Amino acid sequence: MNYKLYLRGAAQVMFQGNAMTGLLVMLGIFWGACECRQPIIGWAALAGLVVSTTVGVITDRKAADANAGLYGFNGVLVGCALATFLGGTWQMWAALVLCSAATVWLRNGMNKVLKQWGINSLTMPFVLLTWVMLLASREFSTMCHTTLSHPSLLPHTALPFPISVPDLLVAWLKGISQVFLANSAGAGIFFIVALACSSIAAAMWAMLGSAIALFTAIALGADAVDIATGMYGYSPVLTAIALGCTFYKPGIRSALWCIIGIITTVYVQAAMYALMLPYGIATLTAPFCITTWMFLLPRYALNDKKRPDHTNWHKNLTNS
Amino acid sequence: MNYKLYLRGAAQVMFQGNAMTGLLVMLGIFWGACECRQPIIGWAALAGLVVSTTVGVITDRKAADANAGLYGFNGVLVGCALATFLGGTWQMWAALVLCSAATVWLRNGMNKVLKQWGINSLTMPFVLLTWVMLLASREFSTMCHTTLSHPSLLPHTALPFPISVPDLLVAWLKGISQVFLANSAGAGIFFIVALACSSIAAAMWAMLGSAIALFTAIALGADAVDIATGMYGYSPVLTAIALGCTFYKPGIRSALWCIIGIITTVYVQAAMYALMLPYGIATLTAPFCITTWMFLLPRYALNDKKRPDHTNWHKNLTNS
Amino acid sequence: MNYKLYLRGAAQVMFQGNAMTGLLVMLGIFWGACECRQPIIGWAALAGLVVSTTVGVITDRKAADANAGLYGFNGVLVGCALATFLGGTWQMWAALVLCSAATVWLRNGMNKVLKQWGINSLTMPFVLLTWVMLLASREFSTMCHTTLSHPSLLPHTALPFPISVPDLLVAWLKGISQVFLANSAGAGIFFIVALACSSIAAAMWAMLGSAIALFTAIALGADAVDIATGMYGYSPVLTAIALGCTFYKPGIRSALWCIIGIITTVYVQAAMYALMLPYGIATLTAPFCITTWMFLLPRYALNDKKRPDHTNWHKNLTNS
Repeated sequence: MNYKLYLRGAAQVMFQGNAMTGLLVMLGIFWGACECRQPIIGWAALAGLVVSTTVGVITDRKAADANAGLYGFNGVLVGCALATFLGGTWQMWAALVLCSAATVWLRNGMNKVLKQWGINSLTMPFVLLTWVMLLASREFSTMCHTTLSHPSLLPHTALPFPISVPDLLVAWLKGISQVFLANSAGAGIFFIVALACSSIAAAMWAMLGSAIALFTAIALGADAVDIATGMYGYSPVLTAIALGCTFYKPGIRSALWCIIGIITTVYVQAAMYALMLPYGIATLTAPFCITTWMFLLPRYALNDKKRPDHTNWHKNLTNS
Repeated sequence: MNYKLYLRGAAQVMFQGNAMTGLLVMLGIFWGACECRQPIIGWAALAGLVVSTTVGVITDRKAADANAGLYGFNGVLVGCALATFLGGTWQMWAALVLCSAATVWLRNGMNKVLKQWGINSLTMPFVLLTWVMLLASREFSTMCHTTLSHPSLLPHTALPFPISVPDLLVAWLKGISQVFLANSAGAGIFFIVALACSSIAAAMWAMLGSAIALFTAIALGADAVDIATGMYGYSPVLTAIALGCTFYKPGIRSALWCIIGIITTVYVQAAMYALMLPYGIATLTAPFCITTWMFLLPRYALNDKKRPDHTNWHKNLTNS
Repeated sequence: MNYKLYLRGAAQVMFQGNAMTGLLVMLGIFWGACECRQPIIGWAALAGLVVSTTVGVITDRKAADANAGLYGFNGVLVGCALATFLGGTWQMWAALVLCSAATVWLRNGMNKVLKQWGINSLTMPFVLLTWVMLLASREFSTMCHTTLSHPSLLPHTALPFPISVPDLLVAWLKGISQVFLANSAGAGIFFIVALACSSIAAAMWAMLGSAIALFTAIALGADAVDIATGMYGYSPVLTAIALGCTFYKPGIRSALWCIIGIITTVYVQAAMYALMLPYGIATLTAPFCITTWMFLLPRYALNDKKRPDHTNWHKNLTNS
């Protein structure tokens, strides 16, 4: 087996099949984890990556997906999320191993279902399985969940975001770092550099996506703390990479399509925050998945001559 | 382009591809809006109709759906709903343009998904996109949502409906007017006449649907205010037109099937009111879509000789 | 028509097409109902079974499913659930007749949808229709719902389960009896014997499933009352029979797969308890359906040579 295959898994969260990108992503995750004095998040991300990739390599016969690192990206996100929300108990590690492994067959099953409509499960297996564990932690007394929000019926009143250049800059970078649940401007820089190693276009779209989402959230009056910590940025960043330079041939039409998608993701993100209020759990990357599906399903040709196929993306990417 | 195509869009909410029906529907919407001293609802309905139809005409190559007005009906409902719940701010108008346009590609995508099971997305694109905006309005301080219900865990105690002929008559007409979110007996009369212009059977089923739903809701002890304002009528009215004279060949069997469907819609409507309680948002026409799908999916032949196809309905209707 | 066909319906809840099993299941339901001094639950189960099977026999042309009793199992569960939660009013009986009949066409429709992915609707038609009635009972003043939980945002603090041999034994048996919503160790013995009449393997997997779920729930710190009344057992019991000896060829690999599935069901069960908190309604067998689908969808070959087909199970079973 090849260690590059594992690193590619970390890169595939942002649609890149590139081992160097994956290495920089892992360093960025550790940077963010150490900045928050929770290095366990980095180790959990690594564990999730290793478990899910290994299970994927063992169970997949064709190995095309395994080669591209497509079994690892859900696992690395499971690791980040469970360590962030459930602390460092053995129950968290047990949940992490079960969830990371289960992303392999849930992804496999979901892709079978979605194939006929020309779309992919994206990070939804991670989202669904992590939701199961976050919700279950409310019922099991041995599962710690001190960092989950308190369930409520109404959000607290949104305070205005104090607009200044440093505040905007940090919020913009954290919009990118939150893709991996990191609340760290430094980690955001790591992720931009990581993307640039594999695709300049992807790095540009990530930066543009975070910027458009930032201004949309401010214009609509989202809560200052949510904006400052990048909570309105990470889903649009993923939508931007997906629609801007992964699933559609780049061009004027797809760029316009992508920008409408980015703005839509901000609304869907806010709607899902409201939807999660009575449960006090995170939306994770669900707003990205839902919006991207909505913009892929019609399979508009845009700049292409024929209807595009969105069932997979590894064939489009530079592999290293 | 043809102005009739726009009017047909307003008529297609009730499955009629008839421009005169559409004109009377628009007049009914304005009548109801003026009766509630909110003429903005009428203008928003018109804006939603124009935006969604125009986007549909531009993006659709074959234009069969565009001709039948099938791009407009979600847009007109988006307009009615957003103006009713989010007032007249620029944020509402921005949401209206985005949502109306997005109904085109969400409908396109959903129909691609549902086609293989022989069903259609009905008004679900309108429902899903409007829910996104209503939920998002809770998180965005600039989006007004004073007319949304306060979230709660239990409904207030249902009061008995005072049965008298005038009360029953008004509740029965409002059951029909609420199809377009209008709380107005006069608008109900407009919509009945509009249906009769295109199909006497559709007008009969709408009236029968509202009547059966009214008595079912009273018998089961629904809340007096909900009954009086037609909140238990609009979904069954749409189920009645769909099952009674749109998707099945009329006859004794399909009439019985339709009546079971109408009664089921009343239960599903109540269940969805309970489901929406913690969010304080409207069910919109979701109970109609869900129940109608449930009664279309098995594709029973009923009075027909072969399994019916429910993927579209414009071919069944008089076009004018 | 054949009375055996009705009895098989009661047995098919646990995937057995055997009339003797069905007879013992019905006796077990009556035993549990009488132990709780609510014999009406037994009669409701019988009514649900008779209505759904009869509607199934009338509407199905091919009659292969009818012969195997596959129309009755949703109906018998509808009867158990509605009588348990909605008491003995005429509104309950009306809901029971409508729901039992509707399971036939909802099952038919859902199986059409799920067929192409090689899976079956399992008990989900029962779950969805019962949820509609439980939620609707909150809005309708004539529908009694005194035994539903009070809606809340947080679960009460989980108390530790007092581990002793008699406590464990009763909790283990109730884990099996709750498959039919019976809180009775005696009914659990009836159901084990019923299974053994048709398939020793199924009886073994049911017992093992309940035991594994019991220890998992205790280890994770689930609430003592929930554990003692078998609320963490019934879904894993069904997962165990489904994965262990119904949908996969038995063997070492499928046994391991089944055990992972049983443990996953315990987490999904807890997550769904948290999900239902704001509504105060039961999860019913939804955790079983969701987890089993997740473990069937990838269609891993396991001990078989080719990808298995999970669209139906009656062909696999001894018919008597």
